[in-house]
Order: sequence, then C-alpha cells, then structure tokens
Amino acid sequence: MVKQVNITLPAFERGFHLIDTYINSACGELPQTGIMHVFILHTSAGICINENADPTVLMDFETVFNKLVPEGMSYYKHDMEGDDDMPAHIKAVMAGTSVTIPITNGKLHLGTWQGIYLCEFRNRGGNRKLVVSIYS
Amino acid sequence: MVKQVNITLPAFERGFHLIDTYINSACGELPQTGIMHVFILHTSAGICINENADPTVLMDFETVFNKLVPEGMSYYKHDMEGDDDMPAHIKAVMAGTSVTIPITNGKLHLGTWQGIYLCEFRNRGGNRKLVVSIYS
Amino acid sequence: MVKQVNITLPAFERGFHLIDTYINSACGELPQTGIMHVFILHTSAGICINENADPTVLMDFETVFNKLVPEGMSYYKHDMEGDDDMPAHIKAVMAGTSVTIPITNGKLHLGTWQGIYLCEFRNRGGNRKLVVSIYS
Repeated sequence: MVKQVNITLPAFERGFHLIDTYINSACGELPQTGIMHVFILHTSAGICINENADPTVLMDFETVFNKLVPEGMSYYKHDMEGDDDMPAHIKAVMAGTSVTIPITNGKLHLGTWQGIYLCEFRNRGGNRKLVVSIYS
Repeated sequence: MVKQVNITLPAFERGFHLIDTYINSACGELPQTGIMHVFILHTSAGICINENADPTVLMDFETVFNKLVPEGMSYYKHDMEGDDDMPAHIKAVMAGTSVTIPITNGKLHLGTWQGIYLCEFRNRGGNRKLVVSIYS
Repeated sequence: MVKQVNITLPAFERGFHLIDTYINSACGELPQTGIMHVFILHTSAGICINENADPTVLMDFETVFNKLVPEGMSYYKHDMEGDDDMPAHIKAVMAGTSVTIPITNGKLHLGTWQGIYLCEFRNRGGNRKLVVSIYS
C-alpha cells in the first residue's frame, strides 16, 4: 500500500528551515507501522534531518555549507542563473533530495532532537514542491 | 510487492553522467503508484539526483567534488590503489549510494529539471552494477 | 508488510565503524525479496555505506571529514556543547541519517566491498539507537 501526498511549501528565505509541521498537517493520519519518503522536486534545494531545537544550528548549517561550496569562483562554467545557482546544485546533492523515516505507532519515528529540514540554497527559491509517499 | 531489476551500466569515464534512460529501459512498465529505489553495488561511485539539462552542470560537479576531496594528499593512509581511490570512497558517501524516487501514474515522479546521475569517481571505474527495487 | 526492529548499539569511539554484524544479528531471518531501511535516531552521528575491508579507509574518512568541517572555528554560533558538537551535526547530514538496501534471496544485497558504517562524530557519543524497517 503506497499513499502519496503533494505539498507546496511557502517560499522560504535562503537557509535551513524546519518543516515537520507542514508535512504532518498535509499527511493526516498515518498507518500504525510503515515508512514515509519525502522527496523534493527541485535541484537547488535539499531535504535532510537534523537538530530541531536551537535556531543557531540552522544558521551554522548555512554558514558551513557556504564555506564548503563558495560562490562566484572563476571555475564555475554554469553561471548564467546567478552566483548562487551552481553552488545550490552541489549543496542539494550534499544535503540530499529525499529523506525516509520510519512510522511507528501511527507517528513519524524521529529521535528526540530530530526535525526535517528544507535546505533552501537559492536566494529566491520560491515555492518548493514535495511528494510524500507513505507505505504500510 | 517488491520487484527487482539488475542493471550493468556501460563503463563511463570519470565524472557525472545522466543514466535515466538506462534505468527506464531496463525497468519497463512501472506500477501506477509506488517507489523506486536505485542502489549502486560499489564504494567508489555514487548515485544522486540533480539538474538534467545543461552539460556544464555535470562538469562543475566534477570540479567542485575534486576541490572538496583533493587527491594525493599526504594524510591518506589508504593509497595503494591510486590517488583517485580514497577520494572516490569519500565522494561516494557525500553523493550517496542510492536514490529513492516516487512513482506516480506509472512514471518516475521527478521534477522538470531532475535526472539521475551516476557519479563515477574512479579514473577507470569500469562497468558499474545497480539493483533497482520497485515497490507498489 | 513492514517489520521493524530496534537496535541499541554499544558506545563506539569517535570515527567510522562497520556495524553489519549488529544489524544482521538483530534482524534475524530476512524475506526473500525486499528492502531494508536503517535509520539512526540521532543528529550528531550518521549512517552510510562504504568499503568493508581495509581499516585505513575508516581512518581516512575520519581525517577527511575533520578537514571538511573543522572544529573550533569562530563562525560557529552553536558552541555550548563542545567543539565537536556543531561539526558533528553537519557531518551527520553529509554522511546521511539512513541507508536503504535491497534484500535478495533472503540476504542484504550489498556489493562485495560494501559494509554499513556507523559514523560517530562526537567524542563521547554513547549508545546510538537505530530503527530498522524491513519491507517485503
């Protein structure tokens, strides 16, 4: 049994953002036991799981990803869409394009400190679309 | 219901390569709703999803991954298989060993600009083997 | 059909560690055909797949991840839990929070050289908990 839900997120500013509440409210009741797969339909934003409590963690993710993949370097060949574009593609691969999470007792089975991040790597990424697949 | 398909890719040169056509032709008809998991049976090549249109994006991926994990550094202990080997292992973890993609209306549900990449990190990686699992 | 198994790993020292034997012994008999999803309930440790043979590969992973995300830099805002904490969060995203592996003929279908790594990024991470989901 696979159930799918489409989600259009509001436009977020560049950076890392917790989106658990969007996913939970869109998906409604979950099966007792299963798996949720959250897939982002874009190549310059990512989806990952990390710390859900301290906002400075989100800021540090932005800082460090910018250091790992700097903008405006002369070695980029794909530079027509702005200095933030090609680095965004690479960061999206590093963060990942989907997450898969167990469902236990009718809830997402995340650790105490785990939340789901939208990683918005463009300066103006606009609305991002997700496909959530739930199997049980 | 899980169906599995084994794919042996042709030998690709070092770099990032779109392989959607190999996967689609090997898998044939897909279920109406489901999930596809593509797994690579190797530790020095990766699988990821990113931009499917501009070939310079693929070149920039190769450039930036080489900058992130440089070759020939004195700190590598595992250096018997060539300068490209240990960096290839690390890049494979950064890119990922598998991708999971929703299937909707009998087709892979990718975004407009998304394609599936083989990330060949060895100078001569040879034929790479994939296991594709389709569940519905 | 989704079956779930909870695993508490022994405390590992900082670094990359093969954990296939823990997963295989906890999961017991596997279905003939299916998929295994291994999820770590933590934000400063990761799960990935790479080379299972040469211990120096594991050491080089530790070395290179430390170079990619250095500790003690003045730009970290989240620094209350020690110099190893914020880098551990970022490394966990780079390595990944889960792996998904095909099951074929009743066994994990890994390549000859593939093993499952616990990536312990904290100096004293303690016991790490996994949720393994098996579908068939």
